[in-house]
Amino acid sequence: MELQLSTYSIQLKPIAESLTSFLARKQYSRIFVLVDENTKEHCLPKVAPILPDVTVIEIKSGEQHKNIDTCQHIWQSLMLAGADRNSLMINLGGGVIGDMGGFAAATFKRGIDFIQIPTTLLAQVDASIGGKLGVDFSGIKNSIGLFSNPQTVLIDERMLPTLPKAELWSGFAEMLKHGMLSGHQHLEQIMNIDPTTEIPTSLIKSSLQVKKAIVASDPYEKGIRKILNWGHSLGHAVESHSLFHSKTPLLHGEAIAIGMVVELYLSEKLMGFPIDQMHKISKYLLAKYPSYFYNKSDIPMMLDYLTNDKKNKNGELLFTLLKEVGIPVFDIPITSEQAQEALEFYMEVAS
Amino acid sequence: MELQLSTYSIQLKPIAESLTSFLARKQYSRIFVLVDENTKEHCLPKVAPILPDVTVIEIKSGEQHKNIDTCQHIWQSLMLAGADRNSLMINLGGGVIGDMGGFAAATFKRGIDFIQIPTTLLAQVDASIGGKLGVDFSGIKNSIGLFSNPQTVLIDERMLPTLPKAELWSGFAEMLKHGMLSGHQHLEQIMNIDPTTEIPTSLIKSSLQVKKAIVASDPYEKGIRKILNWGHSLGHAVESHSLFHSKTPLLHGEAIAIGMVVELYLSEKLMGFPIDQMHKISKYLLAKYPSYFYNKSDIPMMLDYLTNDKKNKNGELLFTLLKEVGIPVFDIPITSEQAQEALEFYMEVAS
Repeated sequence: MELQLSTYSIQLKPIAESLTSFLARKQYSRIFVLVDENTKEHCLPKVAPILPDVTVIEIKSGEQHKNIDTCQHIWQSLMLAGADRNSLMINLGGGVIGDMGGFAAATFKRGIDFIQIPTTLLAQVDASIGGKLGVDFSGIKNSIGLFSNPQTVLIDERMLPTLPKAELWSGFAEMLKHGMLSGHQHLEQIMNIDPTTEIPTSLIKSSLQVKKAIVASDPYEKGIRKILNWGHSLGHAVESHSLFHSKTPLLHGEAIAIGMVVELYLSEKLMGFPIDQMHKISKYLLAKYPSYFYNKSDIPMMLDYLTNDKKNKNGELLFTLLKEVGIPVFDIPITSEQAQEALEFYMEVAS
Repeated sequence: MELQLSTYSIQLKPIAESLTSFLARKQYSRIFVLVDENTKEHCLPKVAPILPDVTVIEIKSGEQHKNIDTCQHIWQSLMLAGADRNSLMINLGGGVIGDMGGFAAATFKRGIDFIQIPTTLLAQVDASIGGKLGVDFSGIKNSIGLFSNPQTVLIDERMLPTLPKAELWSGFAEMLKHGMLSGHQHLEQIMNIDPTTEIPTSLIKSSLQVKKAIVASDPYEKGIRKILNWGHSLGHAVESHSLFHSKTPLLHGEAIAIGMVVELYLSEKLMGFPIDQMHKISKYLLAKYPSYFYNKSDIPMMLDYLTNDKKNKNGELLFTLLKEVGIPVFDIPITSEQAQEALEFYMEVAS
């Protein structure tokens, strides 16, 4: 499947300005806004005055609703409201809204236009960029989906202040990831701020730039884009486990923070990542993020999630690991014994 | 959503030759074959000797199973069998298998390779070409889907002889459509053969060429590709009605034959299509294809289907009509009164 994604703009501006100028350039027959109960309350009022007559589609918040059933609700709502191919979908929310709303739009009548207005730090610095759309299926995250780009991504920090602290830390984990991929200096800058007080625009911008540059050079993740999966192989496995076995499932970034601890361990073991650096970063991550407690008997289930990872090939587990901060290497084969050992390592350090 | 479809080859050859040479050029981790109970019995044995170790996924035949539920069954089967991104899906069947199997493949782990081996005349001359994939949703045909091209389309007439006569006539309706779009001479040639005895390869080829040329010049149906919807606006409305209200739903081509009769009537009324030609072609279609009987009270329901047609814009019904054989015009606005009148015209001539 060879597709070529078009370029699209990412606007870091007050939403009143960026959304107004986007809509002025286009003529849509109908405009839909996808929200959840949170963004309906906190974010919709901030964009409503700018919008012409729109139809609001509401879904329940949370990863557990990112599935084909909710998609069918979105499609049905579009259908009932008479959406045609010339309609626009505005995804106003975090990663779940962006991924699922984008997927629903890209498959409705074979594709209508959509734009992303990310309202969480996670979505602003990561999820809204890169054209990955989809839903979870059969317990596997993002296993049904496609690549398709929005018309534009409109980022406005004024959308963030209503976020709970845990959500801010969750998004911040992806900024830390971008820092680890890009180099010591960038990582240091990020580790020195507190995301719950203030995040400098310059750091959001540089985080976006890391992601954008990597995605642009490999939109379909045939090669280099795989480095963005740093922390995500075991992170997703832990996240999937918590989604089905914990009363308070981990937030995405919380799981990724754990994934980075575990994969730093593997990086040190297999790639010679400097051990002092490993200790320093792991200690930071363990201190800043909540622990996730599991037993040895839970690990086989996590490894099951891992075998369904999209990055695998021919049944072999392939990870992105770090040689050093700023030097990621992708497609490193990992045995399930090594993955198990790393998950056991986390059990020790987290306790 | 601006995408650029890659080119792909259409092979009109013995399947043993074309499939073997395709597989020799590629290295897939797993190969899946999607079949229904008919193609499992009649077509799978013809390709099985050529295939390496494959996993067969079976679905029930028929348009009524072309939906998200069946898609979920396909995704689940892929998941359970451990399909990864480097897997191949072979869609062995008619339009339903090709459209739905292609959609399932193009959205599984954000897209795996798939090839089409059309086994009905309809799929060989029409459905397998053009990258339109999807399923029916909420009673509306093909309302969820996307554009994505297969790696290749392998056409072998030896797949056809097992088809019931009605299926051959159904596919033949699309050849007649291509004839009406391309010109008198082509149409005459097609009208002079009997699809249930022998269809010259040259005519299959020229039908494919008409479709391929139109699709290539407008892959996303922004303009000229809309002419391929000739006969399909009211044809789909009649087909949808029969799907939900008839014990023996019309085959797709049977509905399109009716659609062409009805839209020839509109072409004559609104575009000055020559009346003698209209009578001649309508008479032929009415003689060759089964009639569909409905009452005046059924028409509003058919018009409802029409208002959800993907070709509409701003609530306006837009049709492709003919000025003459070989001179189609797209985006002709039609009032629902005109559509109603045309459907009443069919009631008279079909009785």
